[in-house]
Amino acid sequence: MSDDAGDPGDPVRPVGPDEVAAAHARIAGLIRRTPVLALDRDELGIPDGAAAPGVPVVAKLDLLQPTGSFKVRGAAALLTGVAVPAAGVVAASGGNFGLAVAWAAARLGHRATIVVPDTSPREKIDPIRALGATVEVVAGHYAQAFARAQELLADGDRLAAHAYDHPAVVAGQGTATVELLADAGGIDTVVVACGGGGLLAGAIAASPPEVRIVAVETEGTATLHRALEAGAPVDVEVSGLAASALGAPRIGALAWAARERITAAVVVTDDDVRRAQQQLWSTARLVAEPGGATALAALTSGAYVAAPDERVAVLVCGANTHPATVVGSPAT
Amino acid sequence: MSDDAGDPGDPVRPVGPDEVAAAHARIAGLIRRTPVLALDRDELGIPDGAAAPGVPVVAKLDLLQPTGSFKVRGAAALLTGVAVPAAGVVAASGGNFGLAVAWAAARLGHRATIVVPDTSPREKIDPIRALGATVEVVAGHYAQAFARAQELLADGDRLAAHAYDHPAVVAGQGTATVELLADAGGIDTVVVACGGGGLLAGAIAASPPEVRIVAVETEGTATLHRALEAGAPVDVEVSGLAASALGAPRIGALAWAARERITAAVVVTDDDVRRAQQQLWSTARLVAEPGGATALAALTSGAYVAAPDERVAVLVCGANTHPATVVGSPAT
Repeated sequence: MSDDAGDPGDPVRPVGPDEVAAAHARIAGLIRRTPVLALDRDELGIPDGAAAPGVPVVAKLDLLQPTGSFKVRGAAALLTGVAVPAAGVVAASGGNFGLAVAWAAARLGHRATIVVPDTSPREKIDPIRALGATVEVVAGHYAQAFARAQELLADGDRLAAHAYDHPAVVAGQGTATVELLADAGGIDTVVVACGGGGLLAGAIAASPPEVRIVAVETEGTATLHRALEAGAPVDVEVSGLAASALGAPRIGALAWAARERITAAVVVTDDDVRRAQQQLWSTARLVAEPGGATALAALTSGAYVAAPDERVAVLVCGANTHPATVVGSPAT
Repeated sequence: MSDDAGDPGDPVRPVGPDEVAAAHARIAGLIRRTPVLALDRDELGIPDGAAAPGVPVVAKLDLLQPTGSFKVRGAAALLTGVAVPAAGVVAASGGNFGLAVAWAAARLGHRATIVVPDTSPREKIDPIRALGATVEVVAGHYAQAFARAQELLADGDRLAAHAYDHPAVVAGQGTATVELLADAGGIDTVVVACGGGGLLAGAIAASPPEVRIVAVETEGTATLHRALEAGAPVDVEVSGLAASALGAPRIGALAWAARERITAAVVVTDDDVRRAQQQLWSTARLVAEPGGATALAALTSGAYVAAPDERVAVLVCGANTHPATVVGSPAT
């Protein structure tokens, strides 16, 4: 393997389990060990062609992390894993990663500048400021915010915090799956949402070979699906309900490097995601944002059909939406 | 001890640990083993007179139960612990217990009639109907609903499901504390909201003598506080934010019988409760109803001040409110 850009082979090495374990040791005192919750398939409204009811689905509730998403894992793993200059760190983010970097920087005593696209919801942008970070809002989606962050980084004074394509970030995201597999036990299949693929690449890095990995994307953010069709990562025009969380313009190089470990890559609609959000509230009083309910939507929509005895886990990974978007307006 | 009503002593025997264990064995396959989550005191905004930060607070997330409250434990324990006649069960309830009885009856194949006061929120009443129970709405609070239920029960054809003063119900509620103590380990103090006192009496029944028990009431529902002042249970005019969940007219006989095990009985304001609800959302994206956040409010308000090394657990026990009442209206 070579880092030479002219090399015709794949120059990117997937993140491995040792890196995830090291990240976990660094961040365990910072982040929460979020709980797992077993939920009946019928209570979740999971369609079931089998005669017998299937075994429960295990939900890893990483939406209960500080800042409301799993992204604090990657942010904390990055800022504890590399040297952070005095001028601090710069991140481009649809919101959750920016919030996570701002949170981790505040906890660790670093300065942070976060570039966010104006398509991100206020629920994500306002708290970044409240954590003391400098916020710059640019028109567009993640790609536009990323371009502006590159400008800010040009002088070389600050650390670039990539939302998903840095090995320390991927290793950090993998710690969610480490905890899930340890706390639930006997999991056959991990179902995980994919935007840039940080959580996916982390899940792969954290899982032994016998664990199946199901990657789930929405129609408007199907970067993995398009890359698999094309045979290589390609740019995608992102849109739809989950764009603020899953709206990376193309699948990340680290997720792409690990693609052989993906058992199934499925695509769900925005309506599937909305129904999964409603199901999480009605059955377990959990408020998940669209990207946070996308993995579950693969099961509730039937896009991924698990065998009745298949022990399936879903990463419920973000909560940063106004609950009224899930529950509807208050009764009058 | 005697059941003779003429006996000048206390005729009611507190529920004990064996009854809780038996209830847990009966209902474990029906209810959820809800998770615990450790939360930093400073993230929860708990005032702290000490030099060093205190040990984390453990939250038992029983608001993630089916129907959104711990009450399914008591309802399931009752309907599996006594013979249910063909005509079914009648319950009076501010909402959560009615919802729980309707849920347990549906799961176990029994008929249910639920009498609810018109002061209960629609979030609690509508789903009772959706579970197939017959709903009767009466003007007033729990006391009025209870009186109507007694009329319905006069012919003796149906089982009375008391919301808190039946030993099987209390034993069922105690299973939350059994799980909490087993899953968290080393807990010194259990903080629990008190309305009629079912959850409190259950917590006492489930706790070994060395575990401290802190009972928390709101100003508008302070039945235990008033009873302790008066030296005996007295009727209270209930009011305020938590009335639909904690609005029993007087402390239950089973909680009163166990009062010697209460380490501290504290009272919080509705504003304290509101702040605790907001804190649960901002730090952990949990939507708790007022009664569900009342125990935590004792800590966040300083009504109960734990020692820095005191391992405190709070039962976060209900979620049946519209999230907009916690989070505010959506940003526009």
